[in-house]
Amino acid sequence: MAKQITLYTAKICPWAHRTELALKESKLPYTRFEIDLKNKPEWYAPQVNPASKVPAISYGGPDVSPDTPSPESEKIAESGVLIELIADLSNEELLPKDPVLRAKARFFIETVTPLVAGAFRGAMAQGQDPEAIFKAVDIIQKLLPAEGYAIGNWSIADAAVTPFFARAEVVFKNDIGAYEAGKGKATWAKLESDEKYARFRKYFNDIKARDSFKETFYPDYIADTFSKLYPRTATASA
Amino acid sequence: MAKQITLYTAKICPWAHRTELALKESKLPYTRFEIDLKNKPEWYAPQVNPASKVPAISYGGPDVSPDTPSPESEKIAESGVLIELIADLSNEELLPKDPVLRAKARFFIETVTPLVAGAFRGAMAQGQDPEAIFKAVDIIQKLLPAEGYAIGNWSIADAAVTPFFARAEVVFKNDIGAYEAGKGKATWAKLESDEKYARFRKYFNDIKARDSFKETFYPDYIADTFSKLYPRTATASA
Repeated sequence: MAKQITLYTAKICPWAHRTELALKESKLPYTRFEIDLKNKPEWYAPQVNPASKVPAISYGGPDVSPDTPSPESEKIAESGVLIELIADLSNEELLPKDPVLRAKARFFIETVTPLVAGAFRGAMAQGQDPEAIFKAVDIIQKLLPAEGYAIGNWSIADAAVTPFFARAEVVFKNDIGAYEAGKGKATWAKLESDEKYARFRKYFNDIKARDSFKETFYPDYIADTFSKLYPRTATASA
Repeated sequence: MAKQITLYTAKICPWAHRTELALKESKLPYTRFEIDLKNKPEWYAPQVNPASKVPAISYGGPDVSPDTPSPESEKIAESGVLIELIADLSNEELLPKDPVLRAKARFFIETVTPLVAGAFRGAMAQGQDPEAIFKAVDIIQKLLPAEGYAIGNWSIADAAVTPFFARAEVVFKNDIGAYEAGKGKATWAKLESDEKYARFRKYFNDIKARDSFKETFYPDYIADTFSKLYPRTATASA
């Protein structure tokens, strides 16, 4: 019998979202437990993840409530580790058996993640130009095959990068963040209209059409939360 | 029949060294080709690795000389990707089959690498205090089981971190680098004598006793090359 899986996650977090996408695609049963990142439960760091971050998984052990984790279950953290674990556990082919395709999936993850995560975070939190995301899109378009996902069939490579593009879409379209007002909308409009980004659009739309995406992405919550974290201040008047 | 493997590498590079350790342990036959990082062959970036870095592997295709790579072979780069590929290709168990142990190996890689790579590079190239390496050692000691390597038997987790500790030993013992003179020797002496680092010493000595290490590490070359890159300037006199 399959061992129990409890996922400790947070809707806002792109790293946690990677794990949710992989779990949905894996068809493994699991219990989802939302961690309030602003007010983490006291038991979370000592009993689940000493780094006090999401995502983390408890695997195996007795069937207990997520908020009273058993010392008998394995506790595993880091989204890159977890999506590989989920691929190893699943009967669905989240990574193919062919060693070269597996290497291509991992190269996609290693290459695209820092670019898209950096562009998204840099724009929203540090006020950098949102156009930095085009570098990630250019690389993706070079790596994508003519049809399909990162390595053809959907794989954990797609789970790894999806959460950042999805959040960038919400944040840029709503012009949320520390960057110059208007630049988010303009950047996303270019991505949606420029002929040279057609391959990326097809890729991203295919991803968004999957149940795994629809069931794990909360755009209104994300827009609301990030707009409170990074408010656009009105011009001060005395 | 096993497909051909050509490794493009450089003795000085810790990232490339990860791949050499994994290949030696894999018992897969391969051809080693040294890339002069200061004077890279013109064909290297266009025909092997567009990022122009080592390590990279050509896999499969016809049996050609390394300096005339065939367009028919797969070209794969990034050391983290390559050690997983080598584990996937090898009949030796470089990663166990158990999903939880695989996750533990990957967590070890993700957690220890930035600490030890950062401490080594930060001290040598940026003049930071070599004692930063103790943070990496503390984490390793928390993660290591009572006996053996990162997850018990030797695995790619050990290949991932060994090159940085090995270079730190050579560089610190010879006080090579941009940090305050004497601090390298003092740091390594503490690591070699303090009772609280006994578990790390056992781990590192076990690694150094393996053929895979002896056959892939060039301490004199590394000391010589790094001491030229980071010379200790004598006090200037007019």
